[in-house]
Amino acid sequence: MNTIEKFDVKYERNLSMLMDFYELTMSNGYLINGLGDKIVYFDVFYRKNPDGAGFAIAAGLNQIVDYIKNLKFSKQDIEYLRGKEMFSEEFLEYLKNFKFSGSIYAIEEGTPVFPNEALITVKAKVIEAQLIETMLLITINHQCLIATKTNRIVRAANGKPVLEFGARRAQGYDGAIYGARAAYIAGAEGTATTLAEQMFNIKASGTMAHSWIQFFKDEFEAFKTYAETYPDACTLLVDTYNVLKSGIPNAIRVAKEVLEPMGKRLKGIRLDSGDLSYLSKKVRSMLNEAGLYDCKIVVSNSLDEYIIEDLLLQGAEIDVFGVGERMITAKSDPVFGGVYKLVAVEEEGEITPRIKLSENTEKITNPGYKIPWRLYDRETGKAIADVITLAHEEIDDSKPYTIFDQEHIWKKKKLTNFVAKKLQVPVFIDGKCVYKTPTLKESRDYCKQQVDTLWDEVKRFTNSHKYYVDISMELWHVKQELIQKYRVND
Amino acid sequence: MNTIEKFDVKYERNLSMLMDFYELTMSNGYLINGLGDKIVYFDVFYRKNPDGAGFAIAAGLNQIVDYIKNLKFSKQDIEYLRGKEMFSEEFLEYLKNFKFSGSIYAIEEGTPVFPNEALITVKAKVIEAQLIETMLLITINHQCLIATKTNRIVRAANGKPVLEFGARRAQGYDGAIYGARAAYIAGAEGTATTLAEQMFNIKASGTMAHSWIQFFKDEFEAFKTYAETYPDACTLLVDTYNVLKSGIPNAIRVAKEVLEPMGKRLKGIRLDSGDLSYLSKKVRSMLNEAGLYDCKIVVSNSLDEYIIEDLLLQGAEIDVFGVGERMITAKSDPVFGGVYKLVAVEEEGEITPRIKLSENTEKITNPGYKIPWRLYDRETGKAIADVITLAHEEIDDSKPYTIFDQEHIWKKKKLTNFVAKKLQVPVFIDGKCVYKTPTLKESRDYCKQQVDTLWDEVKRFTNSHKYYVDISMELWHVKQELIQKYRVND
Repeated sequence: MNTIEKFDVKYERNLSMLMDFYELTMSNGYLINGLGDKIVYFDVFYRKNPDGAGFAIAAGLNQIVDYIKNLKFSKQDIEYLRGKEMFSEEFLEYLKNFKFSGSIYAIEEGTPVFPNEALITVKAKVIEAQLIETMLLITINHQCLIATKTNRIVRAANGKPVLEFGARRAQGYDGAIYGARAAYIAGAEGTATTLAEQMFNIKASGTMAHSWIQFFKDEFEAFKTYAETYPDACTLLVDTYNVLKSGIPNAIRVAKEVLEPMGKRLKGIRLDSGDLSYLSKKVRSMLNEAGLYDCKIVVSNSLDEYIIEDLLLQGAEIDVFGVGERMITAKSDPVFGGVYKLVAVEEEGEITPRIKLSENTEKITNPGYKIPWRLYDRETGKAIADVITLAHEEIDDSKPYTIFDQEHIWKKKKLTNFVAKKLQVPVFIDGKCVYKTPTLKESRDYCKQQVDTLWDEVKRFTNSHKYYVDISMELWHVKQELIQKYRVND
Repeated sequence: MNTIEKFDVKYERNLSMLMDFYELTMSNGYLINGLGDKIVYFDVFYRKNPDGAGFAIAAGLNQIVDYIKNLKFSKQDIEYLRGKEMFSEEFLEYLKNFKFSGSIYAIEEGTPVFPNEALITVKAKVIEAQLIETMLLITINHQCLIATKTNRIVRAANGKPVLEFGARRAQGYDGAIYGARAAYIAGAEGTATTLAEQMFNIKASGTMAHSWIQFFKDEFEAFKTYAETYPDACTLLVDTYNVLKSGIPNAIRVAKEVLEPMGKRLKGIRLDSGDLSYLSKKVRSMLNEAGLYDCKIVVSNSLDEYIIEDLLLQGAEIDVFGVGERMITAKSDPVFGGVYKLVAVEEEGEITPRIKLSENTEKITNPGYKIPWRLYDRETGKAIADVITLAHEEIDDSKPYTIFDQEHIWKKKKLTNFVAKKLQVPVFIDGKCVYKTPTLKESRDYCKQQVDTLWDEVKRFTNSHKYYVDISMELWHVKQELIQKYRVND
């Protein structure tokens, strides 16, 4: 069950059975072979930033907390599984009483993250760790994707507000709802999705569609009726027939003849088609000429970070960006490739690391129970590098620390005068939630503040500088040993 | 509320407030200006096939039926809206008692569809028609997107089964669940998503992840344990360490030493990395040499229609395709641009058509209350053209009928010996559901049968032949009149 109550909204479903079927065949297999209680370690990480970017934004942890807390299997679920005639009664009985008893460590929402570091580390009985794989991945892959894309768009807008307008083009209902959530964390100011305000307290707004204008006998009457209905919040959509010859003249007329006599101002106009650079400049000068200096120009229509950057470079007179499909689906690169990999198994009290080999050397996993650290320059506050160590290692930031490239280990760099911070926080310890979930606003502020710790070179939209994510010397040795052990000699 | 009960699963939420905020501002505006009861007509249509394809596949209608049936606003919703201090008490009272009382006509799920024809036509009081916009669009845009992409992939596989494996990379939970549904309608054989089987009776299957193999001390022990656990359904993942030197030899050993003594056969092996053409051929010959002719080769790893087509052209020895992220997100073109446009308003008993103009002539809407027809060649059974007429028009297929290009009206074609079929069916009439929802299997069969009515030229993956979607002469005249009326003269 997944329950959220903000403004008393119930958005509740049983998502416990949202899993790849193989989680069940494997779990049953572990159990009936007497292996279900073995403690294992899994990492959630990804290999490549979307859009060739320099970093991604972590998001979705709160939904994972909800999921883990409420994970249970109903009588109906058990019946369904029994009908598959593959599962032992012992396993079905086990599921009936299932409760997650493991530990979860995670990087907090809003944090800039990089490839190959664990956004989440799960330490649990293998059967439990296996069963939660799919839900962890869907949640992380979706929300990190949208947060990462939105952060690019917000940075392109360079301080001007960006509103999330994408619901209708989202990939399903959750795509709209949790997409609005992830977008907010990453810097969107508000949303058009009403339910997102009810659930997450993200300010929802909106005025009119073309249908409002088409419904009335002419554009002026449509504008006039709207202004009379909402004199304090009147933003008019001006492109139904012709922006410069009809929409703007009618909007100005409404500002003068309807709103001014009431002592009100026209709040804004919205452009949803045409060349937004050309039109916004023309519109701005027409509005100014009519004394409507304070009337905001809102634009929408297939915007993304590249178009917004171009519009601003060309001096477009835009006050607010409404971004739809390209944000809510991350259209340019719509998959966040998070994976869930077994990295260690406890055997007779020892944590023994595991590896997955691949012909593609970049796909070889980092083995062992590990933690990711971020090293910040003490002077500038900027992030210098992330380092992944084994969990028992400490980085003592009172001393110099040498990082190195794991492919070319002669490439070294000695760091001094830095602060080392563990990136993960404990979320569940032995089944108990120990994490105080921040408000969405706090995650959003944290995101902004943490993105500010990155050098501009890392933040470039294309050809961004590759931020260092290195591994400790001890981890490097463990990895080399396992590669030698498991590689099949020719 | 959106309730589905198959296998007694509850997947229930209040989605009534999942709407763009402007639906509410407009609806309140219609109401308090005494216009809320005016009857209007809206069309749901799209302008461009994804991936430059020749057609799309309709999907999602069943979820729209559920939504409309259960659409209601809770006390909490009303409280939330009151808190926005924008809405009249009259409107809030109206919402409290809301029940959809309009009529909906729609093209059935599984039907091949084309740009600019109404997948759905809504005739309702303007306030009701406006409030349902966002949910109609999310549903149609998501499910048509995935169905359209899946149908391409299934056609590329040329009769070999395609399984949907995408949940973990889906854009949210509904992305996985309704994505599996849409994929099934369009021809996927099964899914990896367990909940999709519970909800929709789509066969769910799966065996093991790399974690199963990594968990054991070596690959042979992992395979052996799995085979002993599932002797009747043993498909082994062979690429954890090295396919040809470790995975396949171990799989063959298990087939011989574990399964054969039990009188069982190895059902399959799965390849999830490497060059699938090269590996599948090598693997096939190793399996055959060991007498495992009946062992199926299942492949996965970033497949799509283009890669599958290439693999088959190169003679890859593949029996089953598992397709993940590129299907479940329609990665190559992840937005289905369905829109909801006002096309007519009833005024004093007369249906008066409405138009939305645009500088881009292709974006000018087809005005009026209309119906789409499909004309099939009586001899070959193939679809010749779709024609959109005003609703009162009939196409008499006992007589010749002339279609024409609306941009170049001298381009005409006289059709004889055809059958004309209305594409939409009544779904709601005056608020009452009159549609008997087919089973998913029926929609899937219908899809296959209808795609077979398209010429191969229309089905090409790139540069496909443009299928005719024409308008009747009467509609053409109505459209020209409105363009003249609303265009602003220079």
